[in-house]
Amino acid sequence: MQIPSEMRQWVLARRPVGLATEEDFRLETAAVPEPGPGEVLVRTQYLGVAPVMLRYMTNNTDFERDLEIGDVMHGRGVGLVVKSNNPHWQPGDLVYARLRWREYAVFDDDPYYIPMRMGHPDLKWSYGVGTLGNNGFTALIGMREIGRVSDGDQVLVSGAAGGVGSNCAYVAKALGAKRVVGIAGGPEKCQLLTERLGFDAAIDYKASGVESAIDAQFPEGVDVFFDNVGGELLDQVLARIRRHARIVICGRISEYLKDPADYHRHRNLYRIGLMDGKLEGFFVDDYRERYPEFEAVLADWIRAGKLVPHEDMLEGLEQMPAALIGLYDGTNAGVRLVRIDPTADQGR
Amino acid sequence: MQIPSEMRQWVLARRPVGLATEEDFRLETAAVPEPGPGEVLVRTQYLGVAPVMLRYMTNNTDFERDLEIGDVMHGRGVGLVVKSNNPHWQPGDLVYARLRWREYAVFDDDPYYIPMRMGHPDLKWSYGVGTLGNNGFTALIGMREIGRVSDGDQVLVSGAAGGVGSNCAYVAKALGAKRVVGIAGGPEKCQLLTERLGFDAAIDYKASGVESAIDAQFPEGVDVFFDNVGGELLDQVLARIRRHARIVICGRISEYLKDPADYHRHRNLYRIGLMDGKLEGFFVDDYRERYPEFEAVLADWIRAGKLVPHEDMLEGLEQMPAALIGLYDGTNAGVRLVRIDPTADQGR
Repeated sequence: MQIPSEMRQWVLARRPVGLATEEDFRLETAAVPEPGPGEVLVRTQYLGVAPVMLRYMTNNTDFERDLEIGDVMHGRGVGLVVKSNNPHWQPGDLVYARLRWREYAVFDDDPYYIPMRMGHPDLKWSYGVGTLGNNGFTALIGMREIGRVSDGDQVLVSGAAGGVGSNCAYVAKALGAKRVVGIAGGPEKCQLLTERLGFDAAIDYKASGVESAIDAQFPEGVDVFFDNVGGELLDQVLARIRRHARIVICGRISEYLKDPADYHRHRNLYRIGLMDGKLEGFFVDDYRERYPEFEAVLADWIRAGKLVPHEDMLEGLEQMPAALIGLYDGTNAGVRLVRIDPTADQGR
Repeated sequence: MQIPSEMRQWVLARRPVGLATEEDFRLETAAVPEPGPGEVLVRTQYLGVAPVMLRYMTNNTDFERDLEIGDVMHGRGVGLVVKSNNPHWQPGDLVYARLRWREYAVFDDDPYYIPMRMGHPDLKWSYGVGTLGNNGFTALIGMREIGRVSDGDQVLVSGAAGGVGSNCAYVAKALGAKRVVGIAGGPEKCQLLTERLGFDAAIDYKASGVESAIDAQFPEGVDVFFDNVGGELLDQVLARIRRHARIVICGRISEYLKDPADYHRHRNLYRIGLMDGKLEGFFVDDYRERYPEFEAVLADWIRAGKLVPHEDMLEGLEQMPAALIGLYDGTNAGVRLVRIDPTADQGR
């Protein structure tokens, strides 16, 4: 393969205040890096976006390296190895890693990169930034390791049409859940939940009467709540948990743009104690040693038709800022990702 | 042993509004029950009291049978078998069970009674309502099963001088905790924590500056918070949890007497997600199949001097209402219990 001398990359131009705008990013041309000793050069195939990436821009996470103005944006994606000075990797290998927003990237054995060999190149490579990557792993960890979903559980998911949420019903059902209900915004997304994403029912949070809708869907209360939204909605669900309920704290998109002084104050936290329940957060990277196991489980479910990934694909590196910003306008459905290499998947 | 024909018992005279008063109970004389087929008659040796028992009086728990006015008060204690129509029990056996507030009681194989044979009659029988009973089991379950305390953890306990709390430092240390700090009210209790109850330091919640005191004791943040108090204090600790912290919800004595409308609204719940932490409640009876294991672990620690039970013993069935009410005035220290049989422990 011919490796060009130059590539495009997105750098942080300015720290956003609240929601980012396109002006907070700058598209640059840079030299394609030459891999040093132990390093691997990949051509970026797909990059994912997630709400948390907005916080990378203000160095407001505990788990990502700080960004200076002018640094290439953090991001994870699927890369095709094109050159390797590392005995573990050969040209043609597919890897999922912290590649950043650029057309070519290098990584080495530093665990920071979380390089994971994609074990199922027969399946769509793009799944590596979706159902066979962080989105799917997060759904699986949340439902299985944290939520301990098993036979007969009645499960509620917020942000159900999102990248993680769109995998949640399939995962919960595969683990034995009796019923999975999703919460999303607007009738179109709600239709998607039940028609394409495996949910038994949908609740429109933009319509009135969310609390009575939850009551109607869960007359016995909620066993597992997989929460991507936080805030007031979490409080409303706390009021409706069943004995031994598990609340999986995955995300909190309703408050990522707010000042901490404006965060919701929860009335119903006491119900965790009263109902002998659990409320637990988790970080997908803490499970990195088990990624191959998770990937195998999810790939089996895809092949068996138990899990149907739903992709919201944008085309071209130039779409990255819009892809991220758009996660906050509530319109995306499924796993949002960007195809960086127009020839991606041709080797499949 | 001569069994009398009559005994004394406390019945519910009136439902309390807020904190109970002595007038809400009535001491009655009743016939000592004759055990029917499969039933066992015991002479009550010791009865325990716990804050939650106030809620029995208004039928405000999910796990205790409803009480009508005139019913004998619920309660658990240690009984000495004096007559048995059940092949599993012989006169002279010691049992921990739901005996209610009376001098003699019957039970049978109904799991409601949770009858547990006391496996360590060489140790003080009174421990059966304390460290070798629900108080100790609760500390052990909370620290080990829920809090997963292990080597190096820095642990904070609220209600640290209480029945459960007084076991907490010993249990956490035996599990490997590096440091255990207790919160209690007033200088006398704080002195007790460090001099008698195994805590490394004490924080007086009645003094000013509780938050800065927690900061000073936990410059790196709290790994495990064992909470008996709830409300505002829980919020203050949420602000100070460390990554992967575990908050064990054991009790919520600060709010048991409040109307739900007046419960504290938590500002800092979002930190569970941010710090990938956990907040979990539990119910000791859900672990009843493991009581013999717990009892053995705790008895070993007592014999090894790693756990020193601290008892707050009152004398005589007539003290039961005062023993319970007094739990709410903040003066008791250690496991509060009442000796019902003046000859208790003589067979030891």
